[in-house]
Amino acid sequence: MGRPYHVGIIGAGTCDDSTYQLSRNVGFEIGKRGWILICGGLGGVMEGAARGCSESTGVTVGILPGLKKESANAYIQVPIPTGLDEGRNLLIIRASDILISIAGGYGTLSEIALALKTKKKVIGLITWKDIPGVHYASEYRDAIQMVESFLKNA
Amino acid sequence: MGRPYHVGIIGAGTCDDSTYQLSRNVGFEIGKRGWILICGGLGGVMEGAARGCSESTGVTVGILPGLKKESANAYIQVPIPTGLDEGRNLLIIRASDILISIAGGYGTLSEIALALKTKKKVIGLITWKDIPGVHYASEYRDAIQMVESFLKNA
Amino acid sequence: MGRPYHVGIIGAGTCDDSTYQLSRNVGFEIGKRGWILICGGLGGVMEGAARGCSESTGVTVGILPGLKKESANAYIQVPIPTGLDEGRNLLIIRASDILISIAGGYGTLSEIALALKTKKKVIGLITWKDIPGVHYASEYRDAIQMVESFLKNA
Amino acid sequence: MGRPYHVGIIGAGTCDDSTYQLSRNVGFEIGKRGWILICGGLGGVMEGAARGCSESTGVTVGILPGLKKESANAYIQVPIPTGLDEGRNLLIIRASDILISIAGGYGTLSEIALALKTKKKVIGLITWKDIPGVHYASEYRDAIQMVESFLKNA
Repeated sequence: MGRPYHVGIIGAGTCDDSTYQLSRNVGFEIGKRGWILICGGLGGVMEGAARGCSESTGVTVGILPGLKKESANAYIQVPIPTGLDEGRNLLIIRASDILISIAGGYGTLSEIALALKTKKKVIGLITWKDIPGVHYASEYRDAIQMVESFLKNA
Repeated sequence: MGRPYHVGIIGAGTCDDSTYQLSRNVGFEIGKRGWILICGGLGGVMEGAARGCSESTGVTVGILPGLKKESANAYIQVPIPTGLDEGRNLLIIRASDILISIAGGYGTLSEIALALKTKKKVIGLITWKDIPGVHYASEYRDAIQMVESFLKNA
Repeated sequence: MGRPYHVGIIGAGTCDDSTYQLSRNVGFEIGKRGWILICGGLGGVMEGAARGCSESTGVTVGILPGLKKESANAYIQVPIPTGLDEGRNLLIIRASDILISIAGGYGTLSEIALALKTKKKVIGLITWKDIPGVHYASEYRDAIQMVESFLKNA
Repeated sequence: MGRPYHVGIIGAGTCDDSTYQLSRNVGFEIGKRGWILICGGLGGVMEGAARGCSESTGVTVGILPGLKKESANAYIQVPIPTGLDEGRNLLIIRASDILISIAGGYGTLSEIALALKTKKKVIGLITWKDIPGVHYASEYRDAIQMVESFLKNA
């Protein structure tokens, strides 16, 4: 058997409750499948996803922009401080096999673009619209199903 | 007096003749004003812009994805090999005071997003459409005028 | 209570049996104390340390030079591919609270220097000699004791 | 004909007058030969070398740790802000064909090690002693002669 897949979650650093719950649901499904969750380690979507993943006993990694591991949210088990600021966005992409994008601003847009540039699949959930190459899902179960399907055929 | 401004050109690595000429016109105006041209150092828009800039005796810098300075186009006077692949995109943004985006694919989109994320102005010329925050120009003289105006008010 | 400490192991990518066993002993003590092991994820000292750490049920992180998580040794639970080649050396330092250096060549020397430059403690075990600022230990129990002592007084 | 060689100067950020003059002499010889000077762009050895190089009409590049080009010394014609802090050390090495090390602390030691790790020649002038692989010169003319000899045989 091989190594577990790494699923990256990229998205908004602050978000409303429904986006947080959506992220938590996505994270829960990731952990349940034994995949490792890679994210930026901070708040909002990153926290929701890490929380969900840890609730299904998954492993959560936070690749942080700053130099202090204490800046990671409480559900990150493996914080990786980089001190690279936005430079860490590329590291999130490189550490992931596939990405799910949830909401997000310019940082998330840079991650979507870097993922597509490096030929990684990006699943979009209520995120930047109409980016050619992104596979849009309408709800979290679809997103997870798309991930499963892409990983199986990789 | 201070240092010359750094104007970054981001855009397609391969392009048709009219985009190349557009880039060359933009580059020429950059060199004429004594600004330093920052770009990714390769072909297409990067070559057109560096060519125009050197034609008006401007300084051209190419921040390269690979490890060989010989990969720079012929109009780059200062090639900077980085070995960071797409990681060099962020360095182009950080080395520039303001950016002009011409055509381009996912790499360019990542640069637009990283520029906006780090609060730098981006002028768009026939490039990714409808990105909120990009200042779109309809032709190269407008783009240069917008750069002048932003730099004066910075 | 806070987050577990991150102890970085830097050292030779290939080594003889006694250095491998030394690294394994160090790793075992790290895992036993609940610290997270950070290393470069490849062979030699990195493998020995990760093996020992996993034998005492510790968490092992490998910050890899390449783009494939499959290049990590078998005892790395969380591989982080970076694609930065030697650029990942700085990330190992930044992700660690304190470092133990075992044997090693120029890559390890760069890590020792970057650690000291960024004010992190470095414990040396049969490694580059006479580097001012390195705290040299004569055997692995001393090294672990020095780590404990430094972390307690940090 | 090809591109000019890039000669990197690594060394102390603050230094006494005689080290500054030594660096200036080295820089002067670099500029006189049409080589491009690559350095970290700050004070001490970096300033002395850039000053000498610009006195013989050479091109000077400063790869800066911070985000502001204004932090470069007055003799840097092409400042490249990176925001990578010590991460910029590797970029200095990658942008250079060969290195001269003058005085310096841990940052310089990391650069020597990264250069040797990536198979680049390092000439040492009153710098870290007894590093295997460094070619030590006793005065600046010897150092320049060694550079010429290595470049000719590359």
